Amino acid sequence: MAAFVPRPVPVALIGLGGVGKAVLSQLLSPPLNARFNLILIANSRQSISLPLPNGTLTPSNYLPILEQHGTPLDISSILSLLASHADAPGIFIDSTGSDIIPSIYPQILGMGINIVTPNKKATSSALSLYQDIQSKTYPNAPTLFYGESTVGAGLPILSTLKDLVETGDEIEKIEGVFSGTLSYIFNEYSRVEGGDVKFSEVVKIAKDKGYTEPDPRDDLSGTDVARKLTILSRLVPTAPALPEGYASVPTQSLVPDVLSNASTKEEYLERLAEGDEYFSKIRDEAKQEGKVVRYVGVIDLKAGKVECKLGKYPTDHAFATALKGSDNIISFTTKRYSPRPLIIQGAGAGADVTAMGVTSDLIKIHERLTTRP
Amino acid sequence: MAAFVPRPVPVALIGLGGVGKAVLSQLLSPPLNARFNLILIANSRQSISLPLPNGTLTPSNYLPILEQHGTPLDISSILSLLASHADAPGIFIDSTGSDIIPSIYPQILGMGINIVTPNKKATSSALSLYQDIQSKTYPNAPTLFYGESTVGAGLPILSTLKDLVETGDEIEKIEGVFSGTLSYIFNEYSRVEGGDVKFSEVVKIAKDKGYTEPDPRDDLSGTDVARKLTILSRLVPTAPALPEGYASVPTQSLVPDVLSNASTKEEYLERLAEGDEYFSKIRDEAKQEGKVVRYVGVIDLKAGKVECKLGKYPTDHAFATALKGSDNIISFTTKRYSPRPLIIQGAGAGADVTAMGVTSDLIKIHERLTTRP
Repeated sequence: MAAFVPRPVPVALIGLGGVGKAVLSQLLSPPLNARFNLILIANSRQSISLPLPNGTLTPSNYLPILEQHGTPLDISSILSLLASHADAPGIFIDSTGSDIIPSIYPQILGMGINIVTPNKKATSSALSLYQDIQSKTYPNAPTLFYGESTVGAGLPILSTLKDLVETGDEIEKIEGVFSGTLSYIFNEYSRVEGGDVKFSEVVKIAKDKGYTEPDPRDDLSGTDVARKLTILSRLVPTAPALPEGYASVPTQSLVPDVLSNASTKEEYLERLAEGDEYFSKIRDEAKQEGKVVRYVGVIDLKAGKVECKLGKYPTDHAFATALKGSDNIISFTTKRYSPRPLIIQGAGAGADVTAMGVTSDLIKIHERLTTRP
Repeated sequence: MAAFVPRPVPVALIGLGGVGKAVLSQLLSPPLNARFNLILIANSRQSISLPLPNGTLTPSNYLPILEQHGTPLDISSILSLLASHADAPGIFIDSTGSDIIPSIYPQILGMGINIVTPNKKATSSALSLYQDIQSKTYPNAPTLFYGESTVGAGLPILSTLKDLVETGDEIEKIEGVFSGTLSYIFNEYSRVEGGDVKFSEVVKIAKDKGYTEPDPRDDLSGTDVARKLTILSRLVPTAPALPEGYASVPTQSLVPDVLSNASTKEEYLERLAEGDEYFSKIRDEAKQEGKVVRYVGVIDLKAGKVECKLGKYPTDHAFATALKGSDNIISFTTKRYSPRPLIIQGAGAGADVTAMGVTSDLIKIHERLTTRP
């Protein structure tokens, strides 16, 4: 029998920020460089077709090459290239933060092109877009759409939830700390062993360490957590419908009333200490109950609730004791995993681990596309 | 466009013990009953082809039907049936505890038949058999072999390790409590809050609750943990080769010297208290260091070691605080997940959760086989 050599699957990678670069680096390393045929890379302005006419693409030379030889980004021609490739169907990797590209995912899938993305927009926005995507993917169509890294980065959160649901388990509750930034802030602010550090100080340290967005309010609004909860909820048949996606999730903002009128990031950061009283009251209350404070996302199927909020947890709870640094922790309580839940914990953000979520999705599609009789 | 209806994949299920029955029940429930075409079920003596000439197979009627209408088990004809089915390739589920069937896995895979199994024997025994299987499966051949439930039952342990390795992460250490039985015994015996319960008493309670094998020495030998470590090690390219599989893993037995001459299960159980001094010494030593005792499997890539042993863990370590009941907990320390590891925790044994591992493997193969252009 001749040796089996799975055909290289054509891939186009759009978006070369931190995650995109890390994906590129993983795809250019053996053994993956033999399994995937990277036919195009692009950032938000320019794209370049591969292989290069002379020379090799490496994780360190792509940027000057793109700048010098790239042509203006044109999504339609990228899609035509993927769809008409001799080894089609291929995979479109959307590693941008774009709102626009997700809106054409149904069209892309309709062309028979598989999609892998760390972009949360498509699956956490309007239900209509989500349903459009679902109708064009497995098991409703032969095309695949994977976004493992949209929740928990490289942690196997979505795949585990899918496995639970598809094998007939009944989800009772999903509860977790889904934001690395908010994990860090509350692990430092509300410790099992106590302490009286000010909230404003912890936020400033988190910002200086690069753990927060440039405007920390983007993290403190809870929106990112609401998007992740939306993505998870939609995998649970008995969860509320969330017609407007993350906007339908009741989400507690951590920008206190007294600071809500700060008009600029600079003003907000300057006045940050004005919110300290608000947070210290919450921490003191929890302490009196023998608890710590964490910002959590909760999908409670019995109560029919999806919400993002500050929660109080006993000092011997996993969210109090097990959580360190900027780790995510997610617990699934189900008919089978009850009363003790299935728990997954680890770094839930960062370029390398997010890229791992993307690349493992790519490998799954490769395996699916190449194991054909 | 006509609606896409993925073809039902033909499946034969051999082995109808606790796990096999739970797999059968999951496969007979919607939506999976539409995705799989169960063409044969068998226990160790008899098999019956499906669909039934009159009537429907249900999780409650299969046993009398098999007894009354079954024909003697004949693996060769089952394989012919699978390989020649109009919708081939199909899937062979080995839910037996057999040593023999795994020895013909390479032959089965060579026929183009995919295999899913909770049977640890194939991948934890001789390296030659393992390599034979590897050479006949993806990415070396188009056929698939999955055994997610062989480690941690329904917990996503193997798939996570595969994702880490295949996306280019470097594994530094894998450490965990891999046996539900030994988890229960040591969680009860060596508590963070202390206590002076006798080891023999805990073993007896575990046996009465049905947590141990009929002969508790089968759990206390550590062999089951050594098999799981072998399976994990073989997914890590830099791990020791373990030519004889689990037999090559240094494994601390928990049957103390003083009891090693017990010739029968009955004698062993009767004399169990003779070992109490041995274990209480170990617990006391740990306590003096502020630690608890756990039976763990460790793959330490830096030290080049794979071993099963009693380990001592500080009272604030996850293995001391997070572990309850008969949960498994597995931590992966890698280049990316370092210094804080990726941790997965939950029930790692039981028919339903083990069947979940089997069924989710089946779904992955279904997705692979039916997403063809």
